[in-house]
Amino acid sequence: MKKSLGAKTLGAVPVWVVGSYDHAGKPNVMTVAWAGICCSKPPCITISLRKATYTYGSIVARKAFTVSVPSEAHVKEADYFGLVSGKTVDKFAVSGLTPVKSDLVDAPYVAEFPLVIECKLLHSFDIGLHTMFVGEIMDVKAEQDVLGADGSLDVQKMNPIILGAGSMQYLKLGGVIGQAFEVGRGEGKSG
Amino acid sequence: MKKSLGAKTLGAVPVWVVGSYDHAGKPNVMTVAWAGICCSKPPCITISLRKATYTYGSIVARKAFTVSVPSEAHVKEADYFGLVSGKTVDKFAVSGLTPVKSDLVDAPYVAEFPLVIECKLLHSFDIGLHTMFVGEIMDVKAEQDVLGADGSLDVQKMNPIILGAGSMQYLKLGGVIGQAFEVGRGEGKSG
Repeated sequence: MKKSLGAKTLGAVPVWVVGSYDHAGKPNVMTVAWAGICCSKPPCITISLRKATYTYGSIVARKAFTVSVPSEAHVKEADYFGLVSGKTVDKFAVSGLTPVKSDLVDAPYVAEFPLVIECKLLHSFDIGLHTMFVGEIMDVKAEQDVLGADGSLDVQKMNPIILGAGSMQYLKLGGVIGQAFEVGRGEGKSG
Repeated sequence: MKKSLGAKTLGAVPVWVVGSYDHAGKPNVMTVAWAGICCSKPPCITISLRKATYTYGSIVARKAFTVSVPSEAHVKEADYFGLVSGKTVDKFAVSGLTPVKSDLVDAPYVAEFPLVIECKLLHSFDIGLHTMFVGEIMDVKAEQDVLGADGSLDVQKMNPIILGAGSMQYLKLGGVIGQAFEVGRGEGKSG
């Protein structure tokens, strides 16, 4: 018997750091967890922001953003990036992290984070308090030490941060459960 | 120095099972990982589906869907739900799992999964190969054993499945890294 918890946003979702340039060209970062992959062709991600954020105006003006995926080692910086506004603070300067100008889109990413996704703004949808930005992925760049032997991303090595929306805890990944599009193949065939 | 991986959909994203009724009222489920929370007010989630899926037409017609969040214990069923089409298979019957009619929206959910999110279709956005459905959350229901002492969702107890997009592995959650909106408070104040 399930218990009603009310109309709430609950689940285990990714913690992503969105990079953008403001009107003066100052690099800024903010942390989002209302975000995800949203299309395979063209490859796209979506991030949701409140219009009140400093990043909102920057993305609208520059038509670009990046996502830098923090690993556990940078949880303090990632959390900090969601606590203060780029309107009043230079978050790169305070955190000591390094902005890198993307060579593909008009936005900066975080040098120290293991994975970065460079996006051109494709769509903007007003949903309510949050606006969904859909960005087309122009490239993904990763540090060598989060790649597997075949050169593809090893998500476990990346050691990303997951937000438990509900308890609002940052969680790490544990072990492998199984291979997608494989572990369910026998289902319904043995009985 | 980062290595370019190309324009790909990579990251650690949630594994959700979408429930819907077809034209004949047959309950169906499909697994998605292109999905996430997208707005706080009204509380909304987004799921991305290809138009070719059987679920696509059901959601458009019924203007509703559910998300049932599988735990590790049901990884085989969750994977299976993404391997076959409800057009030709009764996935509930084959898997032995139980469809429950939502009392709030015109869609079924999976009784055996610990968390369910009941949504009315709010928007549909064609991005490319995938269409983003935005659903307004009407209620979230959870099993008692995934709730903390204060009655709120404990994501660790829920033991959800995360997809490592890249290696395409199902991963489990590990331990708590820290509290959101808290661990970064000291940042920039000590130096």
